[in-house]
Amino acid sequence: MDCLFCEIVKKNIPSKIVFENEYLLAFEDIHPVAPVHVLIIPKMHIKDINDISEQNIEYLTQIMLSIKDIAKMLGIVETGYKLVSNVGKDGGQEVPHLHFHMIGGAKINANISYKND
Amino acid sequence: MDCLFCEIVKKNIPSKIVFENEYLLAFEDIHPVAPVHVLIIPKMHIKDINDISEQNIEYLTQIMLSIKDIAKMLGIVETGYKLVSNVGKDGGQEVPHLHFHMIGGAKINANISYKND
Repeated sequence: MDCLFCEIVKKNIPSKIVFENEYLLAFEDIHPVAPVHVLIIPKMHIKDINDISEQNIEYLTQIMLSIKDIAKMLGIVETGYKLVSNVGKDGGQEVPHLHFHMIGGAKINANISYKND
Repeated sequence: MDCLFCEIVKKNIPSKIVFENEYLLAFEDIHPVAPVHVLIIPKMHIKDINDISEQNIEYLTQIMLSIKDIAKMLGIVETGYKLVSNVGKDGGQEVPHLHFHMIGGAKINANISYKND
């Protein structure tokens, strides 16, 4: 099977897109954990943050420059949000295509716990 | 009072530095929530992710390119981690100088909850 998020980029799988440009797509998480919960992904297939290199850095640069605009569109630029990217098994990454969770719309609490294997 | 993290960058306030280059500093969080918990900050004062612009983007680009190396040094590049940046009040930002939490060293669980004001 092809990468789920690449299929969303190609629009072979529908998503509720909130922002899009040449480099990135932002769409609503299908299992929101807060009033605002979107995923921001590069349009190029980059597996995770460890996979960032000089070859694909422009996608990350453009994401970093666009986050504020996405937050503004979602009405959370003033109130704030958490930006989270999970990497690998210990990070709890579920889809192997780099993504940032943008979570806001209320006071967000993240209670972190951990478990040794 | 000056910015706490700018003082750490200037080494006026001590920290346990794990990685440093021209653009960034990575140091141990003083209140770790997991076996590995470091903060990655730009050496330039950038308030938060909303404050990223063409004028300071190089700092973010360099951070994005260095995260893998930091994870490697900390022994968590294969096992994984969560990368988290809190923005503003709803995000729970505590120090108004952009920082990414890198949290790993065990299976990390983040239980997200929220509260409307």
